Amino acid sequence: MVMPVTPDLRDLFGIEHPIIQAPMAGSTTPELVAAVSNAGGLGSIGMWMMTPEQIREAIGKIRALTDRPFNVNLFAGGWESRDVDPGTTLDILRRVHKELGLSEPAVPAPFEVPFQAQIDAIIEARPPMFSFTFGMPDGATMKRLKEAGITTSGTATTVTEAKLLVDAGVDAVVAQGSEAGGHRGTFAGSIDDAMIGTMALVPQVVDEVSVPVIAAGGIMDGRGIVAAMALGARASQMGTAFLICDEASVPAVHRKVLRQSPGENVTITRAFSGRNARGIVNEFIDAWHGQEDRTLPFPLQNVATRDMRAAAATRDDPRYLALWAGQGAALAREPMPASRLMQELVQEIEVARASVTGR
Amino acid sequence: MVMPVTPDLRDLFGIEHPIIQAPMAGSTTPELVAAVSNAGGLGSIGMWMMTPEQIREAIGKIRALTDRPFNVNLFAGGWESRDVDPGTTLDILRRVHKELGLSEPAVPAPFEVPFQAQIDAIIEARPPMFSFTFGMPDGATMKRLKEAGITTSGTATTVTEAKLLVDAGVDAVVAQGSEAGGHRGTFAGSIDDAMIGTMALVPQVVDEVSVPVIAAGGIMDGRGIVAAMALGARASQMGTAFLICDEASVPAVHRKVLRQSPGENVTITRAFSGRNARGIVNEFIDAWHGQEDRTLPFPLQNVATRDMRAAAATRDDPRYLALWAGQGAALAREPMPASRLMQELVQEIEVARASVTGR
Repeated sequence: MVMPVTPDLRDLFGIEHPIIQAPMAGSTTPELVAAVSNAGGLGSIGMWMMTPEQIREAIGKIRALTDRPFNVNLFAGGWESRDVDPGTTLDILRRVHKELGLSEPAVPAPFEVPFQAQIDAIIEARPPMFSFTFGMPDGATMKRLKEAGITTSGTATTVTEAKLLVDAGVDAVVAQGSEAGGHRGTFAGSIDDAMIGTMALVPQVVDEVSVPVIAAGGIMDGRGIVAAMALGARASQMGTAFLICDEASVPAVHRKVLRQSPGENVTITRAFSGRNARGIVNEFIDAWHGQEDRTLPFPLQNVATRDMRAAAATRDDPRYLALWAGQGAALAREPMPASRLMQELVQEIEVARASVTGR
Repeated sequence: MVMPVTPDLRDLFGIEHPIIQAPMAGSTTPELVAAVSNAGGLGSIGMWMMTPEQIREAIGKIRALTDRPFNVNLFAGGWESRDVDPGTTLDILRRVHKELGLSEPAVPAPFEVPFQAQIDAIIEARPPMFSFTFGMPDGATMKRLKEAGITTSGTATTVTEAKLLVDAGVDAVVAQGSEAGGHRGTFAGSIDDAMIGTMALVPQVVDEVSVPVIAAGGIMDGRGIVAAMALGARASQMGTAFLICDEASVPAVHRKVLRQSPGENVTITRAFSGRNARGIVNEFIDAWHGQEDRTLPFPLQNVATRDMRAAAATRDDPRYLALWAGQGAALAREPMPASRLMQELVQEIEVARASVTGR
């Protein structure tokens, strides 16, 4: 029997189950978001690479597919100004481009991510929830979000960051443990110091902040969801687990290698975007070994590697894809619709609950 | 009301509560071990630095204090043969020795840890349980342990290591997540790759091995214990949480700084022993920044830093102590007897169990 949801979860996020599908930019689609939300979880979509027009369109599509709450996400900072010689990037890309039959790689021109225009589009569209990573919107923006009735959450990788977010006025904090796949959310202090495991991070954040905490990092099934609840989290945010969903925008080979990748094969790299992110070790990451401080600054490196990643995706070639994944990747399932994954997770929650009570 | 212990836990380890006090060599005492075991947990003592005579004596003392099961631990490998110039160690120690009024530091002569003689002493003394770290005893030794009726467990930091341990014949596997304090147990593959968080490591090990799994790393209270149970672990091994016990052999300042050390202040270092271990950042660790590959090989660096650590302990000087701690250090309690800590943990388990069921 499915246990009743705790009332505060419904009040907070309007959802039935303590499951948030992580806003993985590039891998999430309106279809995935809607399927998760329709199944009683919270679907999320990553929008940092979108124009304001694309943001409006995506939110419109989600609304057409569900009347349940959903979440949209932006990077609220993290734009780097490191002054780097592009030589290493060009050398490495030249070899790969040649192999893939692509034209000569180029150094992308510096550009600004139109964060204020993105925020304006979001506030105008009024999604039920907005989450952000890599820092915090300024006070005026936080005020506008609140006035628009949008529930906000921010990503913390340390207790210090969690407190900064609460001071900024978030409604919830995502505590991102070191196990998490994709980009590290660290925005205050050193990335090396902020590699705190979910088991240690979540209860420390829970004890130090006044808002609900969402656990993220290494959570792949009902066992992890119940573990996060035991640690004091109100919900679990899961990325890697949802990559296999039919509705996700993920190359087939990426879905497949997840299950073949034990924790020791999932590493932190700057090779793909210029910013630290966790993915499955492959040839491109190996090519950068020992010289990752020579990537272009984020997000320029992301632009520089775009043609390579697109070509690799077309060919289903795992060597040059950003195979984002958390340390729980090997627990990923066979491809299935998000609605079925949600069903399985909800059933597993009951099994895990029973396992800790002996009932 | 305290839930009945699952029968297999009593069958396996003969304990009432799913709590194992970690065998922290140097910090554990017969008094601590006995207090934990008498309270229904499993006390453990680290013996790698002991002579066979000291091993016999310590086991005798524990037996005099409890008739409950307890666990003894050795390092079953990990002796390094790196060829290192001792210059950096001597330079750094010279400065510290001068400040502490100690005589000129010396390069310790290479020596062999008498593992076979230690094992012989343990098999002769027949403790109920024997655990090991940094590798595995050979087949003949495993056979002798089994014939002596001693329950064995080994430490794994990856699924690969867990499988190796099961193949070697262990009765249980300790899955040590990256959060854990003190020495990393990694014995197969690279230490950098084996930094897998408890949340991701435990369920992967549970799914891949046929023996009971003990979770370790970042577990500080009943929330963590119940979280580990949800992940499929039969018990939790906790180190940092027990450092504050009156019966532990830990300088007062070490107990105190735990609570003041959020996860981002707890790092991995080779500075103290030559082998990677997690502790609270201090002056000595900082002095080694960027040159940790120049420490003497383990355990020579441990011997080289011994006088410094002893002097710092006498003065309660945190700058030159090995302040071993996991990433959950800030959740440590005020000093108290181990019996009271066990009581608190058992009560917290019930609260955390209730929190995941909504009851």
